[in-house]
Amino acid sequence: MTISVAVSGASGYAGGEVLRLLAHHPDVAIGAITAHSNAGQRLGSLQPHLHSLADRVLVDTTAENLAGNDVVFLALPHGASAELAARLPERTLVIDAGADHRLESEAAWEKFYGSAHAGSWPYGLPELPGAREALRGARRVAVPGCYPTSAQLALVPGFAAGLLEPDDVVIVAASGTSGAGKAAKAHLLGSEVMGGMGPYGVGGGHRHTPEMEQGFGRAAGEPVRVSFTPTLAPMARGILTTATARVRPGVGAAALRAAWESAYAAEPFAHLLPEGQWPHTKQVLGSNHATLQLAFDEHAGRVIVVCAIDNLTKGTAGGAVQSMNIALGLRESAGLDLEGIAP
Amino acid sequence: MTISVAVSGASGYAGGEVLRLLAHHPDVAIGAITAHSNAGQRLGSLQPHLHSLADRVLVDTTAENLAGNDVVFLALPHGASAELAARLPERTLVIDAGADHRLESEAAWEKFYGSAHAGSWPYGLPELPGAREALRGARRVAVPGCYPTSAQLALVPGFAAGLLEPDDVVIVAASGTSGAGKAAKAHLLGSEVMGGMGPYGVGGGHRHTPEMEQGFGRAAGEPVRVSFTPTLAPMARGILTTATARVRPGVGAAALRAAWESAYAAEPFAHLLPEGQWPHTKQVLGSNHATLQLAFDEHAGRVIVVCAIDNLTKGTAGGAVQSMNIALGLRESAGLDLEGIAP
Amino acid sequence: MTISVAVSGASGYAGGEVLRLLAHHPDVAIGAITAHSNAGQRLGSLQPHLHSLADRVLVDTTAENLAGNDVVFLALPHGASAELAARLPERTLVIDAGADHRLESEAAWEKFYGSAHAGSWPYGLPELPGAREALRGARRVAVPGCYPTSAQLALVPGFAAGLLEPDDVVIVAASGTSGAGKAAKAHLLGSEVMGGMGPYGVGGGHRHTPEMEQGFGRAAGEPVRVSFTPTLAPMARGILTTATARVRPGVGAAALRAAWESAYAAEPFAHLLPEGQWPHTKQVLGSNHATLQLAFDEHAGRVIVVCAIDNLTKGTAGGAVQSMNIALGLRESAGLDLEGIAP
Amino acid sequence: MTISVAVSGASGYAGGEVLRLLAHHPDVAIGAITAHSNAGQRLGSLQPHLHSLADRVLVDTTAENLAGNDVVFLALPHGASAELAARLPERTLVIDAGADHRLESEAAWEKFYGSAHAGSWPYGLPELPGAREALRGARRVAVPGCYPTSAQLALVPGFAAGLLEPDDVVIVAASGTSGAGKAAKAHLLGSEVMGGMGPYGVGGGHRHTPEMEQGFGRAAGEPVRVSFTPTLAPMARGILTTATARVRPGVGAAALRAAWESAYAAEPFAHLLPEGQWPHTKQVLGSNHATLQLAFDEHAGRVIVVCAIDNLTKGTAGGAVQSMNIALGLRESAGLDLEGIAP
Repeated sequence: MTISVAVSGASGYAGGEVLRLLAHHPDVAIGAITAHSNAGQRLGSLQPHLHSLADRVLVDTTAENLAGNDVVFLALPHGASAELAARLPERTLVIDAGADHRLESEAAWEKFYGSAHAGSWPYGLPELPGAREALRGARRVAVPGCYPTSAQLALVPGFAAGLLEPDDVVIVAASGTSGAGKAAKAHLLGSEVMGGMGPYGVGGGHRHTPEMEQGFGRAAGEPVRVSFTPTLAPMARGILTTATARVRPGVGAAALRAAWESAYAAEPFAHLLPEGQWPHTKQVLGSNHATLQLAFDEHAGRVIVVCAIDNLTKGTAGGAVQSMNIALGLRESAGLDLEGIAP
Repeated sequence: MTISVAVSGASGYAGGEVLRLLAHHPDVAIGAITAHSNAGQRLGSLQPHLHSLADRVLVDTTAENLAGNDVVFLALPHGASAELAARLPERTLVIDAGADHRLESEAAWEKFYGSAHAGSWPYGLPELPGAREALRGARRVAVPGCYPTSAQLALVPGFAAGLLEPDDVVIVAASGTSGAGKAAKAHLLGSEVMGGMGPYGVGGGHRHTPEMEQGFGRAAGEPVRVSFTPTLAPMARGILTTATARVRPGVGAAALRAAWESAYAAEPFAHLLPEGQWPHTKQVLGSNHATLQLAFDEHAGRVIVVCAIDNLTKGTAGGAVQSMNIALGLRESAGLDLEGIAP
Repeated sequence: MTISVAVSGASGYAGGEVLRLLAHHPDVAIGAITAHSNAGQRLGSLQPHLHSLADRVLVDTTAENLAGNDVVFLALPHGASAELAARLPERTLVIDAGADHRLESEAAWEKFYGSAHAGSWPYGLPELPGAREALRGARRVAVPGCYPTSAQLALVPGFAAGLLEPDDVVIVAASGTSGAGKAAKAHLLGSEVMGGMGPYGVGGGHRHTPEMEQGFGRAAGEPVRVSFTPTLAPMARGILTTATARVRPGVGAAALRAAWESAYAAEPFAHLLPEGQWPHTKQVLGSNHATLQLAFDEHAGRVIVVCAIDNLTKGTAGGAVQSMNIALGLRESAGLDLEGIAP
Repeated sequence: MTISVAVSGASGYAGGEVLRLLAHHPDVAIGAITAHSNAGQRLGSLQPHLHSLADRVLVDTTAENLAGNDVVFLALPHGASAELAARLPERTLVIDAGADHRLESEAAWEKFYGSAHAGSWPYGLPELPGAREALRGARRVAVPGCYPTSAQLALVPGFAAGLLEPDDVVIVAASGTSGAGKAAKAHLLGSEVMGGMGPYGVGGGHRHTPEMEQGFGRAAGEPVRVSFTPTLAPMARGILTTATARVRPGVGAAALRAAWESAYAAEPFAHLLPEGQWPHTKQVLGSNHATLQLAFDEHAGRVIVVCAIDNLTKGTAGGAVQSMNIALGLRESAGLDLEGIAP
């Protein structure tokens, strides 16, 4: 059975990564490839690394061009996906890489995004408790933010097992620059980025914070408070997340490890590494895998969990394709049988 | 039909890249995975990016461990591959990533390698005139050096078409550090490499020079002299080769372009880019593709051809797998349906 | 008045950085330049960036070679500095870049370093309350660890002002590879480091933790507990420290900012940036400056302070030279009038 | 004697580098700091690495603001410097970092820049034969292009000594991204640059080619033809130039080395390294030094000369300050006593 898939935002990093994964997906035929301002251009001039799709011509991002496909991947500015999705046939599986449908709470959305809440769609992180079931047969998918993907993979097992205090989670993450997109902004110039590191969005206002608190809170069964600081690292891809939470009294290293082990033992894409081996983003570059490790800092009374992902793959397009596979009843790892690229 | 393949040097970069490509090759079952000093170790601790092979255990690199496989990939110190190959069953396809069997000339070998010439095996660069035919049904393959792969892809079409003067080829190439291997040497430390560039092996003594002259000379039908300077770039993977040769009198831009176009029009992995688009190693990272472009500098009377490859993929393991496919009569791109990874 | 200065460990990164700063220090004449295993070599072959010192010849690291200088910079293996210092003339100012004399607590030393405590020397971080005074006229200086330098710059003002809870400090730092030294280790190879990030020393055992707790505890007047996670970033130099501490009840953003402002208003090398401007290690590369910014995450009840330094300059050699200047009564910024190098 | 210096283009990379060097120049007081579109802004918000100048306020780039200074550094769009210089007092030393006054040939200017030739000013590369003399007492200086600086340092000694054939020079250079400036262009984004390399301006049309031919031709006493290919490397600063020229019959390695040795023996900023030691841009980062090495490839009949500089320092601002010192009769290395920054 061949699924026809349309991809919008094809000239950007997320759209390009979706196309890279779909190009050799055994069950997919790529349909319309669309972008706002590059209609009529050959994909090869915009995404020269996608050799097998070089001669495809981009069309405008319109409902007309996207309809007629079984699946539509959207990467649009805020507020646009709901409206476009509403104009597609009912049976179309719409997968939104944007933020519009990630948050369940209207209040949280309005506080952090300052616009009307578009509602929430099934959340594209299958490793979360209950998420895989919610994705089966779904016709709408909200792809998580990249930082929330790695943060939730890092800490949800502890919350789900009732081992962590909910009130004082501290997360610091380092991301490659592709997470900031392809727009030409001065602070993202190679000259500004190479050879150094700096933070941004510090202090509680980062839009990924409510998304993390949503996932942690759902798993914990109570509100969780997160302090999140992102930093920009001199690399193109990857997110290394260092997440810490206070451990409930009486919980020890063995119980902690057991919780993460059981959470991920059967997961195809989330791996708790053998003891003593620590994640590194080069382990997962270009792949849908996430690697994790934890340590119990007894002195500080905190568990420290480190998670490495590729922000464009597991953090965006890979998570999207994985969710698509589940929604359509395909093999979950179809098109995602990719090892990391190292060195 | 499933081919069983053994891979030696599995803890190094070349062996790791071969495993990465074979892990999802539709016709391959990976047999023995061997390494000199890591026998008994779990592959996951040495090559953590190879998730699907994490639990494979390495064995010693011996003829006994390698025999019993249809194909054996060798990555051994100089002088060892011929001897080991001789102890394998006749029907085994032996693919040597080392230099031992690349050169046809005994004199050239002895001059540049200072040891006894082991003879030459079919050369693993199918894009060369006659190479594909020589690989069909072969039971021995010499994988080219990474720099010679990109240099020959860059200039052979011009020599084959009789358009270039043979006596004054100048090539400058920039390579990522993985080409230097995994041995811990001070000059390869991240602190020594990041943020800068420097040359090495300058002045005619580089071992890849005779290999380039061999390929150019075969295509030209006369000896070709090359000045080759490699430089080390602050990146893990990739080779950008800038190759120039003087153009024969009366040859113009159109004839030059036509020669490269026809040389590569039907090639699955070598691509002359549309006019105006230039190669970049990020177009081919992690893939077996090579991108090329040429310009006729009329003022200087030289054609300048730039070729981008991934030194570990098309430059080593990808070229090896491609050659294996041809030798065994498989689809040439089996296991190599990989786009580049960008950004 | 010209001070004669001897520098040991001259072939390493720390020694090289000390020499770079001393080469144009207006009050210094560089005396003996020593190294363990490079005696007799020309400095230019080991530290080719030190052009004005290229023809200096290294001698053995012995008390004889070091004596006869007013100041001796030591960079030796653990346990060696006390013994060597004891064999130098009483009046010699000995500045130890190693860890031996950083910790006041014998118990802490033995726990983290597993050897006999050598005692503590005046601590080379003048920005700490009381530190400058302790350095004046000193004849022994312990140069802080690089991570503790940035961590203490980040949080001590808050502890000194009584604004922070002492029991749950969480610090995540990203460092360039030069902090790991020049020894050729596989995990520090450019191929292993470039393009990715990973943590190390996770979980409370890092030797810099007691040093941070020492500084915080002194400022707070009570024990402080720290969870510290270092990560390795794909850059040669720089440390970006993200430090968070819970804020005492009733403390608001204005009080927080005022504490850091007054702590650093008169400091030549520690700068609280204007509101809205955040630190970046490229602001301080190659210079003795540290840049800082803070934000009060009211939602999380934590202050987040980010500090950027160059691990080799303010984090090691610059801090050492700054302390030397104070000890000898020279202008504190002598030899340290260096802007950052950007881009 | 204090020289007052005004710097335009203060928000860009070249202007920032000039300011960095002048900030601690013993004979300089920085006067007006100007920029087109940032008038009124605090320098600290635009160039946060220039700590000692953080509170300086930028003014508009006008003749009025620049006049009243002994020296004016210009970094303006093409065609603007001559006109602005004409409106400054006669005695003002005007140093133009732009291209307008680099070429002596009107025909070459019009061919490569497509506008009216503004004439030529004394050329700011003192190491060239006769250049230092021409700079003494000058009131106009044309700062060379960065690539031509390294190319001429690389080959002029050989041409001046009559050892090289003039007709077939081949140069390939790799540059850090800062050479392309601070304008936000997509191809210069960190995501596009990090982890790879690519060429640009291939084929003879690069504007630096006539500048190289001018310097080579002057030294040779006859026209020299150059094929020049620039490539963009994943680093912020640095140029590594690999330049080759055919060696005249009868010329051997000893004569070649002697020519470069004598050319640079007394030069403060150009260094022919000891035999066997090769240049690396990390040897000269942030400094006005250039390191060189040559090898005679007898097989190819070419000398290969490699030169490493920092494109912003020796390639732009450092060369400018060095020329200023000569023009004003100051110590030539005033303000330029800087070692390279390594690692």
